[in-house]
Amino acid sequence: MRIYDIIMKKRNGFPNTREELDSLIMGFVEGIVPDYQMAAWLMAVYFNHLNAEERFHLTEIMIESGDRIDLSSIKGRKIDKHSTGGVGDKVTLVVGPIVAAAGLVFAKLSGRGLGHTGGTIDKLESIPGFVTSLDIEQFKRQAERIGIALAGQTAQVAVADKKLYALRDLTATVDEISLIASSIMSKKLAVDSDGILLDVKIGTGAFMKDLDGAKTLARAMIDLGRKNGRATKAVISDMNQPLGVSVGNSLEVVEAIDTLKGRGPQDFSSLCRIIAGQMLVAGGMKSEADALRTVDRLILSGEALRKFDEFVYAQGGPEGFSASYAVHFKEAEIVEEVRTSVSGYVQSVDAESIGLICMRLGAGRERKEDVIDPSVGIRILKRIGDRVEKDEVIAVIYANDKRNADNEAKKLVDSFVISEQKTSPPPIVYEVI
Amino acid sequence: MRIYDIIMKKRNGFPNTREELDSLIMGFVEGIVPDYQMAAWLMAVYFNHLNAEERFHLTEIMIESGDRIDLSSIKGRKIDKHSTGGVGDKVTLVVGPIVAAAGLVFAKLSGRGLGHTGGTIDKLESIPGFVTSLDIEQFKRQAERIGIALAGQTAQVAVADKKLYALRDLTATVDEISLIASSIMSKKLAVDSDGILLDVKIGTGAFMKDLDGAKTLARAMIDLGRKNGRATKAVISDMNQPLGVSVGNSLEVVEAIDTLKGRGPQDFSSLCRIIAGQMLVAGGMKSEADALRTVDRLILSGEALRKFDEFVYAQGGPEGFSASYAVHFKEAEIVEEVRTSVSGYVQSVDAESIGLICMRLGAGRERKEDVIDPSVGIRILKRIGDRVEKDEVIAVIYANDKRNADNEAKKLVDSFVISEQKTSPPPIVYEVI
Repeated sequence: MRIYDIIMKKRNGFPNTREELDSLIMGFVEGIVPDYQMAAWLMAVYFNHLNAEERFHLTEIMIESGDRIDLSSIKGRKIDKHSTGGVGDKVTLVVGPIVAAAGLVFAKLSGRGLGHTGGTIDKLESIPGFVTSLDIEQFKRQAERIGIALAGQTAQVAVADKKLYALRDLTATVDEISLIASSIMSKKLAVDSDGILLDVKIGTGAFMKDLDGAKTLARAMIDLGRKNGRATKAVISDMNQPLGVSVGNSLEVVEAIDTLKGRGPQDFSSLCRIIAGQMLVAGGMKSEADALRTVDRLILSGEALRKFDEFVYAQGGPEGFSASYAVHFKEAEIVEEVRTSVSGYVQSVDAESIGLICMRLGAGRERKEDVIDPSVGIRILKRIGDRVEKDEVIAVIYANDKRNADNEAKKLVDSFVISEQKTSPPPIVYEVI
Repeated sequence: MRIYDIIMKKRNGFPNTREELDSLIMGFVEGIVPDYQMAAWLMAVYFNHLNAEERFHLTEIMIESGDRIDLSSIKGRKIDKHSTGGVGDKVTLVVGPIVAAAGLVFAKLSGRGLGHTGGTIDKLESIPGFVTSLDIEQFKRQAERIGIALAGQTAQVAVADKKLYALRDLTATVDEISLIASSIMSKKLAVDSDGILLDVKIGTGAFMKDLDGAKTLARAMIDLGRKNGRATKAVISDMNQPLGVSVGNSLEVVEAIDTLKGRGPQDFSSLCRIIAGQMLVAGGMKSEADALRTVDRLILSGEALRKFDEFVYAQGGPEGFSASYAVHFKEAEIVEEVRTSVSGYVQSVDAESIGLICMRLGAGRERKEDVIDPSVGIRILKRIGDRVEKDEVIAVIYANDKRNADNEAKKLVDSFVISEQKTSPPPIVYEVI
């Protein structure tokens, strides 16, 4: 079938066959199918979507377009995790050590941050000496030895997805659920695992704005995971405000350590507990109640925290880091309190705006080649539903440039909407699927 | 606004502004906007359409992207015509001389045929000596002197449309009403005229399949015409079977001459009468009844036929061609009768299939560079609703290659569906708007 007819078929609302998707996607990767035809097909998919079978085929084609990371030599059940991304999302730093302490293998490839969301790799690299550029053999050996390893995405997994994503990013075809599901899952499924936990964020600071859309996306990804023989679970969690108190690389590492010590912020701790619990379920634990009890025990006993230290040390960081981080982390030179000029209840905290402020302070990248300042960031002291009084401190800026800090302080105040109307905090988790 | 946001806006169902369309379309023409972004926008337009204002802006931008043909120096009311294309459509050859004989100026740029539909230029060029490559000055002088001139589209009108159409043709975004309307009208409006008659075809052999779609297209084009100060009328006519009896270049010229002599096929003559009448109305005649009486008079008196001869002679053809064409036209070497093997009523005659058969016989072009054989074609002797008996001749093939003729004869029989069920012929004209 001609590429023209493949586009026409999708445009007219009919499903494309495996063969059609194959010649379209691989033709595009090989440079035979021109990008304008691919763009037309992508926009047709935006309107007419892909059904479960098409998503399965597309995902498989994308997996096969790159390397597969074979972890079968590692003993034990391997659990992977993916978050659709948010501001202040340091969940991986907490749940990884917990599930590894529980005896599962957490061997994860992770990405760097771009735009308003930070990347786990960047957070870990704020720890002096921490190396994320492990090669596959080092990665496997460490995962086998201590049950946890985390590396930057250096391998060529899902090459087609990478090329496709670059085009989607230029043609306003990123936010279509079947394309998102296939993109995420092609990268996850290219890496060997027994189970996958998906953290689908919704809210003003997330890519998905509403529960229905998030559920549809979660179900599409679960379907792809299960059809590929992976125990797959999804947690739909809130991103109507930043997660936890701290946003910024070393600040977030500290918050993760606090959480592993059992004294993290309530919302963030609670989310980590649910996600770690579901990872244990995906890892084979029968009862959810048992899984949660295990998570609590591993935190209370300090086993999860010790696993974190073991993990940091194994990847080149200081020994016993959770006790000594204050010595190792360079503090920001400027610490500036931000106060509200009105009294009332916090109606909203614009997570995307706060993510962008942190990026401009130096915590993130606007362009891929930007260099990150690990010490800068923001602590958000008031959350949706909280009562605040005029002149009360609502946030703290950590910066290394006074003018920069002053500029962003104004924008930070504007990220809060405060009014006399009482309002309830949003739930932390909407649904577990 | 970034091109990305222009695409996103259209994708999300919002109208694009004049400035947005300008930077998109002209950016594309100048090679600044990549074709993949243009393709994504086109597919978004396929789904979300353009409103009247956007169509107006797009049309104007496309007109301004090329040359305008100024005919203001020619005295008299100038009437143009456009057909959305069909099989056996030789209407221009008949109505042009009629309206010129009525005192209007018919100065038309015309295209060549591609695929299953023939082009007026190709039909006229079957006349020995006929020249269609007039330059603008020759074209204007002739229109002024005898009231009728027809030239191939050599001028650079609506350059943006040409580039856009090439991309639409590769990305399955041709058949969208706002794009079709803007495309057709940008080319028509680039040429000076006082009135425009649009012949919108519907049926199995036409691009538009149903009356509703045709009416929407007609109204969109009329709106563009009137907003640009042109008296614009549309006739929605049938293309469920080839128009008239003859398909093929010199065969169609002969049928046009017969029609100007008042002895053309009933359906075709009737359509020409209505179209010529509406052109006189667009040209300023107040009453439709008067217009039709004028058309009838010009045919009966032979004035229209004399105008045809004058036109052919002016453009390099033989003098008195309507009387002497039999001498000038080379006949096809093979004339093969095609018979039906069943009795019954003709249910359908597949116009597109017949167009393609003629193309393969040599009457049309599959590729732009193909050379046309003016003498080949088909005469369709039975029409929808006609009774036929087993072994009766239903069509005649004119060819210059025996094997070719034999091959196509089989396909020609298959173009007819004949069954015992009585059926009525379709109307010739559905509506005049």
